[in-house]
Amino acid sequence: MADTSTDITTVACVGAGVIGGGWAAHFLARGYRVRAWDPAPDAEAKLRRIVDGAWPALTELGLADGASRDNLTVLPTLAEAVDGAGFVQESAPEDLDLKRTLLADIDAVTPSDVVIASSTSGFPMTDMATTAANPARLVVGHPFNPPYLIPLVEVVGGEKSERWAVEQASAFYRHVGKSVITMDRELPGFIANRLQEALWREALHMVAEGEATVEQIDTAITDGPGLRWPVHGPCLTFHLAGGEGGMAHMLDHFGPSLEAPWTRLTAPDLTKQLRDDMVAGCESEADGRSIAELVAERDRAVIAVQRAVAESRGRADG
Amino acid sequence: MADTSTDITTVACVGAGVIGGGWAAHFLARGYRVRAWDPAPDAEAKLRRIVDGAWPALTELGLADGASRDNLTVLPTLAEAVDGAGFVQESAPEDLDLKRTLLADIDAVTPSDVVIASSTSGFPMTDMATTAANPARLVVGHPFNPPYLIPLVEVVGGEKSERWAVEQASAFYRHVGKSVITMDRELPGFIANRLQEALWREALHMVAEGEATVEQIDTAITDGPGLRWPVHGPCLTFHLAGGEGGMAHMLDHFGPSLEAPWTRLTAPDLTKQLRDDMVAGCESEADGRSIAELVAERDRAVIAVQRAVAESRGRADG
Repeated sequence: MADTSTDITTVACVGAGVIGGGWAAHFLARGYRVRAWDPAPDAEAKLRRIVDGAWPALTELGLADGASRDNLTVLPTLAEAVDGAGFVQESAPEDLDLKRTLLADIDAVTPSDVVIASSTSGFPMTDMATTAANPARLVVGHPFNPPYLIPLVEVVGGEKSERWAVEQASAFYRHVGKSVITMDRELPGFIANRLQEALWREALHMVAEGEATVEQIDTAITDGPGLRWPVHGPCLTFHLAGGEGGMAHMLDHFGPSLEAPWTRLTAPDLTKQLRDDMVAGCESEADGRSIAELVAERDRAVIAVQRAVAESRGRADG
Repeated sequence: MADTSTDITTVACVGAGVIGGGWAAHFLARGYRVRAWDPAPDAEAKLRRIVDGAWPALTELGLADGASRDNLTVLPTLAEAVDGAGFVQESAPEDLDLKRTLLADIDAVTPSDVVIASSTSGFPMTDMATTAANPARLVVGHPFNPPYLIPLVEVVGGEKSERWAVEQASAFYRHVGKSVITMDRELPGFIANRLQEALWREALHMVAEGEATVEQIDTAITDGPGLRWPVHGPCLTFHLAGGEGGMAHMLDHFGPSLEAPWTRLTAPDLTKQLRDDMVAGCESEADGRSIAELVAERDRAVIAVQRAVAESRGRADG
């Protein structure tokens, strides 16, 4: 099937809380018409507050030609919201039964060649698509809060999703400026939320046990590893922790720490295969950049990140 | 005991790999004399490469009066390295037996009123101080790579460490520009590494099982949650995920996800106490800033972080 993602002019946002409202703001800023529906009685006021709150940031980033908050219409019914939409983004609360029913309802009123994407934080589409009549075009399109600023969207289909729907969703998200990871297998929590959730659960355990305070946990990240993660990600970060020996040296040196009780999560066996896969993955990602070049890149970026955060806080106080 | 941290003019760096070398660069940039020792035959050349590699970043950040790479001396013996030092930073490989022996050796040649801090990534000092004659002044001072850029240092004593040593180490690190978390109890991996290690182990599991590639994992963080973590930390980030209801709404809404298989790490029971502690911690950290104000702060900062990283990469390519 041809890529029709560039023909889309109207997006339906079903569910208009923090995530649905953030999506609406993003699509509006990219010049789309947005038709929204949410069953909550105060939904429209809340949605417009979210969009208004996002607009200064989106204006700062640069609006697309024709972008306007006037292109947002809140409709009284689901059927009216999806009418004329070339893409549907569902962002309902994280409740499996609710998602099943809602996706079946959206499916029933939406032409079968329109992709319906769910913002679910972690349910596999196979589990959500059980009651929809046309599951072929149902996919996960998982964003990060706020969807109008954080580029990542994870796209993955369920057992009954067809390849064209996964491809069209990925192409559409890329077209609207997103960084897309298209997964070829379902995994609860996808990729980023599995990583983030492991950290979050360790944090909750620590607070529950009185091992650290909320503030210590946040400072530990904002003033520590959090400064590196926008730059290189956890694997490439540790590639640099190995010094001139890179990931290979790092795993050979810190490998024994995997058996230490540094977190409640037990580690996998550091087999030769896993070691080699990590080393090869880092070398592929480094794409010819030496450790020294990556260190220089990281240093420039970490300084710039620190300054950016400090200046933003200064402006907040000022 | 009076705070003598401002009287220190010379620091001994024992172990001169990536971490020890990074510490040396930081102390040099802050105007200290650094005396280094490392048993590796090529240690001095490697150390000077690390310092030279760090110097452009440190110059960009602004050197202290009198700061110079000429203030680095590499000594042939441990005893000579600690001679005249007002603070000792040990950064040997992460091996418990090695650390025990080395800390006892450092202890034997260093005046007993000088604090000796270990850069260990996760060993409690109680486990490392078993063979030292004067464990009172042995503390953990755990930095993050690179120590010359990432502000966080976690300070914690062992059972035999005395309070003055913990306080003096904390004061000294603050004096040299660090963000210090002083912990009042020992915990393997301290705080930041427990959080980081949980994420890292989940990543290793995913690669081991073929669930994600190294590159997908890094992109999931750099283009996703990694953009928020220098700004607000994991707790305050999720305070904003709850919309106008904050952490309370977030836990009430996403609480059930804690039972979902989103990571291999099982979650703690979300007791009323834990829920209330998380809510109170976020409110304390927010320090009067409304959700709307925090959202505006985050939005400004995330845009600035993205631009900073993009520009740093642009300079790397150019």
